[in-house]
Amino acid sequence: MNYELKAKCVDLAAGGKFVVVLNNSDAQAMDVKHLDRVRLTKDGGKAISAVINISEHYVKQGNIGVFKDATDALKIKNGQRLVVEPIDKPFSVSLIKKKMEGIPLSASEIDNIIVDIMNGNLSDIETTAFLTTLCIRDLNRDETLALTNSIVNSGTTLNFKRRPIVDKHCAGGVPGNRTSMIIVPIIAAAGLTIPKTSSRAITSPAGTADSMEVLAPVCLSEKEITEVVNKTNGCLVWGGAVNLAAADDKLIKIRHPLDLDPKGVLLASILAKKKAVGATHVLIDIPMGKGSKVQTKSEADELASEFMDLGSRLGMEIECIITPGYDPVGSAIGPALEAREVMRILQGEKVSSELREKSLVMAGILLEMVGRAPRGSGRTMANKILGSGDALKKMREIVGAQGGDPKISASDISIGSYFIDVFAKEEGRIHFMNNKSISAIARAAGAPADKGAGIYLHVDKGDKIKKGQKLFTIYAESERKLTLAQEMAEAFYPLEMDRIILKEYGVEEKSSMGTEY
Amino acid sequence: MNYELKAKCVDLAAGGKFVVVLNNSDAQAMDVKHLDRVRLTKDGGKAISAVINISEHYVKQGNIGVFKDATDALKIKNGQRLVVEPIDKPFSVSLIKKKMEGIPLSASEIDNIIVDIMNGNLSDIETTAFLTTLCIRDLNRDETLALTNSIVNSGTTLNFKRRPIVDKHCAGGVPGNRTSMIIVPIIAAAGLTIPKTSSRAITSPAGTADSMEVLAPVCLSEKEITEVVNKTNGCLVWGGAVNLAAADDKLIKIRHPLDLDPKGVLLASILAKKKAVGATHVLIDIPMGKGSKVQTKSEADELASEFMDLGSRLGMEIECIITPGYDPVGSAIGPALEAREVMRILQGEKVSSELREKSLVMAGILLEMVGRAPRGSGRTMANKILGSGDALKKMREIVGAQGGDPKISASDISIGSYFIDVFAKEEGRIHFMNNKSISAIARAAGAPADKGAGIYLHVDKGDKIKKGQKLFTIYAESERKLTLAQEMAEAFYPLEMDRIILKEYGVEEKSSMGTEY
Repeated sequence: MNYELKAKCVDLAAGGKFVVVLNNSDAQAMDVKHLDRVRLTKDGGKAISAVINISEHYVKQGNIGVFKDATDALKIKNGQRLVVEPIDKPFSVSLIKKKMEGIPLSASEIDNIIVDIMNGNLSDIETTAFLTTLCIRDLNRDETLALTNSIVNSGTTLNFKRRPIVDKHCAGGVPGNRTSMIIVPIIAAAGLTIPKTSSRAITSPAGTADSMEVLAPVCLSEKEITEVVNKTNGCLVWGGAVNLAAADDKLIKIRHPLDLDPKGVLLASILAKKKAVGATHVLIDIPMGKGSKVQTKSEADELASEFMDLGSRLGMEIECIITPGYDPVGSAIGPALEAREVMRILQGEKVSSELREKSLVMAGILLEMVGRAPRGSGRTMANKILGSGDALKKMREIVGAQGGDPKISASDISIGSYFIDVFAKEEGRIHFMNNKSISAIARAAGAPADKGAGIYLHVDKGDKIKKGQKLFTIYAESERKLTLAQEMAEAFYPLEMDRIILKEYGVEEKSSMGTEY
Repeated sequence: MNYELKAKCVDLAAGGKFVVVLNNSDAQAMDVKHLDRVRLTKDGGKAISAVINISEHYVKQGNIGVFKDATDALKIKNGQRLVVEPIDKPFSVSLIKKKMEGIPLSASEIDNIIVDIMNGNLSDIETTAFLTTLCIRDLNRDETLALTNSIVNSGTTLNFKRRPIVDKHCAGGVPGNRTSMIIVPIIAAAGLTIPKTSSRAITSPAGTADSMEVLAPVCLSEKEITEVVNKTNGCLVWGGAVNLAAADDKLIKIRHPLDLDPKGVLLASILAKKKAVGATHVLIDIPMGKGSKVQTKSEADELASEFMDLGSRLGMEIECIITPGYDPVGSAIGPALEAREVMRILQGEKVSSELREKSLVMAGILLEMVGRAPRGSGRTMANKILGSGDALKKMREIVGAQGGDPKISASDISIGSYFIDVFAKEEGRIHFMNNKSISAIARAAGAPADKGAGIYLHVDKGDKIKKGQKLFTIYAESERKLTLAQEMAEAFYPLEMDRIILKEYGVEEKSSMGTEY
């Protein structure tokens, strides 16, 4: 049965879901409950299905509160008459319950769920039930393949008329790990196509997109990306600005708050983004160790084998490498500091040897994968491209094509003007650099929102430190945040040192663990 | 770090959750994301933890939208300054993830989760993840016991200074099943204590609380319930009006929309409500068959054994009966129609023999369980109490004590003045009465909100029907709803008939299945 109600626009987004608020008398008349659904139409036009909230006072009887996603979708204005009809739960809810019972889903059933998520037909709690179920009832390989294809089909795809198309991905955040910004120009300079989309930081001080944004705009449309890549062979853009693998963004909104990371969804999410840009050859970096997503060699082995299996079913050639995930890669942490470090490496300066070396090795593997370099000589070829200045030239081309300054140099990049050096209070050897603490301090200093904020490390793991030696510098864009980051650095011990004596009894007591700097 | 923001009250309840809306600039400054959390205080008073929504326009920078549950909890008014501090997810989120991984939870861990749900510390999606997990990873018996105790402790309890305290429960909705309204007066008339709390209809045309409300108020406070029971030995009140087993209400809000019914939670939910009223002897009715929650004998056996096991660990004596769940119990469906039928039975009229008989048998078992009647003679004793008029007298006492008319008779109860009789179009024998269709028609007619709406069945399963015989009457409180219910009755075939010929070929085709009336 249909009801007619007057729209009250609620200027509050519901994260891609369509949500309405009914007065409790109307809800009773319509025989609907909290979180039931209605179909909503305006002037007989497009229909959407919305989830119901019920309130005694927020909307008057005869009115219907409509949240932003729904007012946008139907172009609803205050006071307009809407036709409201109670409807059943979408069919995909029964499919989620089927998987809950342990019955594998077919490709079309998985697609049904993803399409409903895309159309805003599933509420947050239904999507949560789906993801929770996948954390317990693993997706089998057929289901994972189906999920990947559904995610690819949920958004647009890039279609370059070139082969091969090269890509890379790092499965897990390590501070300072800006290899993409070095690998892309090397690969593009070698004449290969590498349309790289990256993410912004979620819990880290900088994502590749945040750092690249210091050099050039990263919010490009699909059309602009295609133009940049056709012109320069590569790009370094923010994946969130384009509609590639769109379902993944919807899933991440639910995965993030609960930290729900079902492996099948992780695999599908990563490879769907590669498939959506048309990648034919992909190198995946799996950081392993304390503080990383992958803790042990056997977990890493299994993940690598699943990436390669799924990739081959998708028609992509995939290689995986396991790398140390316990230390920062490079000395610079924070968007501008990392961008400057990348430019310094491209300009041939002797900084962050680990970031430089890791980038060369990975670029080398990519050159080998597509047959551009014989096995075993990829790194040498990559090093030659870097050493010749071709990679720097290519980076400037890409920066220019994306709308940045094509003459950019490391020295042009401005870093936070508030800074403080931190010195060793005792001598010792650095035996552990705590990624979590380093990230927390950089974020307290303002990264990633304040581009110039972050940390520059002057020492590396294993270094023998003298008392009073400069350990690191914290940069910020305001004095308040600098103070905050400094306090955090004193509380969190980002650099842990071995000392001869850990504790001394019988004298005035000192710190009980070897965690001072 | 603390921030000070100006409150903007949002008059919208978030279902017992504390929810705030931040402007996206403030969120960025505070380094918080959608669904992260803040601690909220006003004037250094009580602190609550709230889940964050982020909006560009709904609240201005420097302001914070606060949903109703939170404004109520802290007595927040528009424009007041609030202290807002980002905090981590509650510890119970990690416990939910532990169970997700298949690790059993200890009693204190389960209590931690329930306490956080009660305090509004867990978001809907976190509670969903918990319930989804319990659908897949069953609670073991220790966990179920712990959950029951936590639910009991989440609310108030009734403490009668009498023993035994008798209770009954029906695990699954069957239309017309108003046994409680007959059993309670019989048991109370026998001098036993029976403080019965019931639910309202969720998806059925009437719950016991809806029907009882036709006779007397059912929204009583704990104090009023205690007075009524001390005076009359029994009561028939709405459980939702009191704070017994409070956590159950919060769980049901999430269980209902997704139909998440993990068995451990079902057991805990039912027995927590019995424990909270101090029950020592409980009879549980498990309806079984097509359309019921329990479909097979072995499922019913298992459920019964788990009820008895859990009951004995809680110090309650429990008996279970399996009853047919496929047909309506009684002829009247709808709050007033059912209340009238109950009063007719109590007054000794010969109506709804199945409802009368089921109530007598169940009252008899309760009398036997507490040793009031020897095994095998409970029904006789119950029948004597009913036949003597003592049960009717007791019902009027209870009605009066709850605030209704202590002289109430069946003929005083007003039924919807719009009605239509439905007649058989063909002869045949009724082989199936479709509970789902009967419920749908009664709800279309306006039940449970319109008390006088519903269906009265004039025939029973197995009856031989002549063409033109009156089958049932639909009652409504408005002509519009009557028409709607009538249309539904024509579409849904509530009474299915066997016919001699199911289909006849070669003549003008008739309905192909034996589903007409």
